[in-house]
Amino acid sequence: MTQRGQGMADDIAEQPEGYARLLEGEPAKAIAEVAARVAERRPRHAVFVGRGTSDHAALYAAYLTEIRLGIPVGLASPSAITLYGARPDLAGALVVGVSQSGGSPDLTEVLKVARESGALTLAVTNNPASTLAQTAELSIDVAAGHERAVAATKTYTAELLALLLLVEGIRNGDGTLPADERAALEKLPRLAAEVLADHGTDELAQRYRFASRLVTTGRGYAYPTARETALKLMETSYLPALAFSGADLLHGPLAMADPDVPVLAVVGAGPGGRSMTDVVARLGERRADVVTVGAADIPGASGRLAVPAVDERYAPLLDILPLQRLALALALARGEDPDAPRGLKKITSTL
Amino acid sequence: MTQRGQGMADDIAEQPEGYARLLEGEPAKAIAEVAARVAERRPRHAVFVGRGTSDHAALYAAYLTEIRLGIPVGLASPSAITLYGARPDLAGALVVGVSQSGGSPDLTEVLKVARESGALTLAVTNNPASTLAQTAELSIDVAAGHERAVAATKTYTAELLALLLLVEGIRNGDGTLPADERAALEKLPRLAAEVLADHGTDELAQRYRFASRLVTTGRGYAYPTARETALKLMETSYLPALAFSGADLLHGPLAMADPDVPVLAVVGAGPGGRSMTDVVARLGERRADVVTVGAADIPGASGRLAVPAVDERYAPLLDILPLQRLALALALARGEDPDAPRGLKKITSTL
Repeated sequence: MTQRGQGMADDIAEQPEGYARLLEGEPAKAIAEVAARVAERRPRHAVFVGRGTSDHAALYAAYLTEIRLGIPVGLASPSAITLYGARPDLAGALVVGVSQSGGSPDLTEVLKVARESGALTLAVTNNPASTLAQTAELSIDVAAGHERAVAATKTYTAELLALLLLVEGIRNGDGTLPADERAALEKLPRLAAEVLADHGTDELAQRYRFASRLVTTGRGYAYPTARETALKLMETSYLPALAFSGADLLHGPLAMADPDVPVLAVVGAGPGGRSMTDVVARLGERRADVVTVGAADIPGASGRLAVPAVDERYAPLLDILPLQRLALALALARGEDPDAPRGLKKITSTL
Repeated sequence: MTQRGQGMADDIAEQPEGYARLLEGEPAKAIAEVAARVAERRPRHAVFVGRGTSDHAALYAAYLTEIRLGIPVGLASPSAITLYGARPDLAGALVVGVSQSGGSPDLTEVLKVARESGALTLAVTNNPASTLAQTAELSIDVAAGHERAVAATKTYTAELLALLLLVEGIRNGDGTLPADERAALEKLPRLAAEVLADHGTDELAQRYRFASRLVTTGRGYAYPTARETALKLMETSYLPALAFSGADLLHGPLAMADPDVPVLAVVGAGPGGRSMTDVVARLGERRADVVTVGAADIPGASGRLAVPAVDERYAPLLDILPLQRLALALALARGEDPDAPRGLKKITSTL
């Protein structure tokens, strides 16, 4: 008999292996080929589209594309196309749909319309036989294997790494990675295993056992991690979790912060993390309880989930790991079943 | 002596007059001139950028641009440029910064970088002398007058209407509005006054007096209204409010819904509203308490703030009004001062 939450625990534990798989052999070669074809077409701008967890991977890819490739990006609202019949002229654009299942009808419709209008379309999914993958001109298989729990964990990080390999391959021109980039990435499976061997999250789950809400925050590359953490906590622990970019938090929601609101702040060792010092200080003035996650040690925080220091560009691949474990541990502490959250299915159909 | 919340109440009450002001004389002419110049340049894609309340106006403009103009849009993350030094090639793009104060250093930096890279830049502010307005090639004054409360209300709706006039003026080619569009818009001041004369929101504020959290949702044109409502409730009542597009709600956060979570669903009379029927039904299965706001009467809701039926494109200009009043009434019911929320200033500086 399987234990409650065993599916999600197994999915989480497989991530170091998933990183190794994507970095070697067939999957790496397939991504490099796609990257080379995108580089050849020299897109003038890029549009990313996703839902739920995959939207957070899309957001990460949007930052990478703008910062590493100098290509302006947008995050599309499928409803403009699917509900209101918008037919934007996407000639010269790269349009990327990100979806674990590849089964979302709205993303498929967006890619279909984009392809008809002359865009280069790419599907990033965990199912190369899916409708989304079949609709797009190019397709990347994130090769994460079957996911046991409804809440996505290993498919999320596989999407992140696949999108990172794609962007760096485009940057390099021929789809391959420069030697220093490859060397840095090859450390990821070992670092991910180290992070998962640390069980500090179980203690933190006890601390949040009776929290009635939670705020997550981060800036730049860390913002998708803040968003994904909030979603995991909502999906598995039914804890209302509000995610803000550090900058947006100061534009209004800060008023809500008080000693009853726990804050998880994702802070890397780089520009995004440094810009959070002020945010944590302002939260401190409001006597909020701030726990930091990541490589940077920020004064004034009441706790910390330390993660090895890497380039902020890679940090999303490590920072989310203890936070997935936190969501799992908190759900179990609250007596919930994180493998089968109430009201959710694995594939969500929205038009 | 002024009453607690009088500033916000006065700001809210001025909105019908603000609509009339923008639709007539100098402000309308100035917007038409800017629209004509944008139309002349035929931008290939558009990027909108804003923070807090102005980000919600930017989101509305993004839907309008994609649906009404067929121009692909993106919402920029200033941090890519301001923290990580991204220098996207924005030649051929329209880049619009939206800010009440025009004083946000990060938006100014984004517009500066965009202008240097060859983009057509436009500032939409309530202060034509601001740094943002001075940095952009083109500038629109939303002419809302001095805002008394820290929480933005009349500047938000002035931004919405100014952006609507801009987009429809671009669509028409010479910056002016077609006669039918003008006729429909001229009804707005009267409709807005009607909506504000209805005091049903005070009763609803009593209902939420002890709520510990709240969810807002809407799709398409109604999504910015859901986002702005959540922010107003956080700023003035310190109520953690989570905003989701109806589609994203089904991709995970639905699990959190239960009879203890009140939901405000914004539902117009059009494709966006119709697509919410399924969302409200799914929330009903989870026995959430759903109150609808807008023109559509959806079965299964436990309450409704009715707003006159208009084209969904105009609905954001009316639907937000009772919701601003709700935020004000709830803050007062909770003994807070909505004119001066704790921890906030009128101008927020983030880099």
